[in-house]
Amino acid sequence: MRILVTSGGTSERIDDVRSITNHASGQLGRLISEEFLNHQINVDLITTPKAIKPSDQAGLSIHLIEDTAQLKDTLEQLLIENTYDAIIHSMAVSDFTYEKSFSEEHFEETLSQLQTPITKEVLADLLTAAEAEPAHKISSDTDHLILVLKKTPKVIQMIKKLQPRAKLVGFKLLSDVSKEELLATARENLVKNNADFVLANDLSNIDETQHIGYLIDKNWQITGEAKTKKEIAHLIYKTLWKELN
Amino acid sequence: MRILVTSGGTSERIDDVRSITNHASGQLGRLISEEFLNHQINVDLITTPKAIKPSDQAGLSIHLIEDTAQLKDTLEQLLIENTYDAIIHSMAVSDFTYEKSFSEEHFEETLSQLQTPITKEVLADLLTAAEAEPAHKISSDTDHLILVLKKTPKVIQMIKKLQPRAKLVGFKLLSDVSKEELLATARENLVKNNADFVLANDLSNIDETQHIGYLIDKNWQITGEAKTKKEIAHLIYKTLWKELN
Repeated sequence: MRILVTSGGTSERIDDVRSITNHASGQLGRLISEEFLNHQINVDLITTPKAIKPSDQAGLSIHLIEDTAQLKDTLEQLLIENTYDAIIHSMAVSDFTYEKSFSEEHFEETLSQLQTPITKEVLADLLTAAEAEPAHKISSDTDHLILVLKKTPKVIQMIKKLQPRAKLVGFKLLSDVSKEELLATARENLVKNNADFVLANDLSNIDETQHIGYLIDKNWQITGEAKTKKEIAHLIYKTLWKELN
Repeated sequence: MRILVTSGGTSERIDDVRSITNHASGQLGRLISEEFLNHQINVDLITTPKAIKPSDQAGLSIHLIEDTAQLKDTLEQLLIENTYDAIIHSMAVSDFTYEKSFSEEHFEETLSQLQTPITKEVLADLLTAAEAEPAHKISSDTDHLILVLKKTPKVIQMIKKLQPRAKLVGFKLLSDVSKEELLATARENLVKNNADFVLANDLSNIDETQHIGYLIDKNWQITGEAKTKKEIAHLIYKTLWKELN
């Protein structure tokens, strides 16, 4: 039996000194990996240099990435090379990556030259065409900096295409919504990503001592609830073990 | 004798799950702190939760901050409460903090309603006035996200105002410029921040094995060069020790 876990949070580079980072300690992915390793199941773990990781041990291979593009490449390669029984995608992946930036002055100049009225096409041109000097380190000599970010591809959606028989566990994290909204969004997510399970959780229920999570299955049923990261890790292990045996 | 060291890199919150982070491991600030601690000099260290730190020991007080606003508050408080012989400001401080964001659709709508021609005033209004829904977690449901960042106050410039007699060591980090440009920019920086010394360094000369730095004094002379983080720490200690005795 062999599983693939993703863990931690990606960082998208803005320039040589700055990044947009998705917060995630890696602690949950570490606990999930350890649950499987403790049961003699091989784990490939894709994570970041800064994330908390399990200690070096037999059965564990760690693959380090920084940004969404590297995550996509590494995930793709592993999914082509190996056959997994399950993939647990707990990584907090950046929805957006850096495209360009404008100083306030440069932005003003660019806007003043736009064709009016400002249509979708004119805007698309502003957001994607030429512009924005390549900068190693963006100058701080402006009162406002305007960053244009573009959407990243949804890497989770490639998983079932490459390994349709592997069980896929996705994660949906929201912030301060009702339980109903959380579960509804997680169910949508499950369908969109062709996942077998989704772990729904809300930032407002995560702190040092607790981490409330609901594991939802393909029939949109809550198959289990957990109150801590350790319980989430065990719930995922237990559920997949039943599913795979 | 008592010194204050800042170390690591600040993070500016975008929403509940994302931040703009300035890269800095904290390793240099740790080595600088240790040089002074090893000579029985008390160190107040302002740094971040994620930065590498010296181990707990007599003479060391650690003050944790995350963003530029917290850095400013903590620095101000320490400078009011205590008297320092020297302040070594090695922290990578965000030049910009998050102000607001627009989805592509919202941005298009906003631009289309702007008065034309787009003058400085019209733009200022766009950048600072109302707008942009408060979001716990920015929706990923748009092709482009436009982030407006505003300049942070230069915290280093408050140091000499509060403690004119303390020796101030600033840092200037550039990326891939000539040595002449690096030194010229560092000298400007020294004057602007009213510093006594500035450590000039370039990202292209920093890696696992080396960290080239030039320490420049008030007379714009290079008082010392270093090739590693450890050498930089020692150079700063040695120079300040001579200065203060």
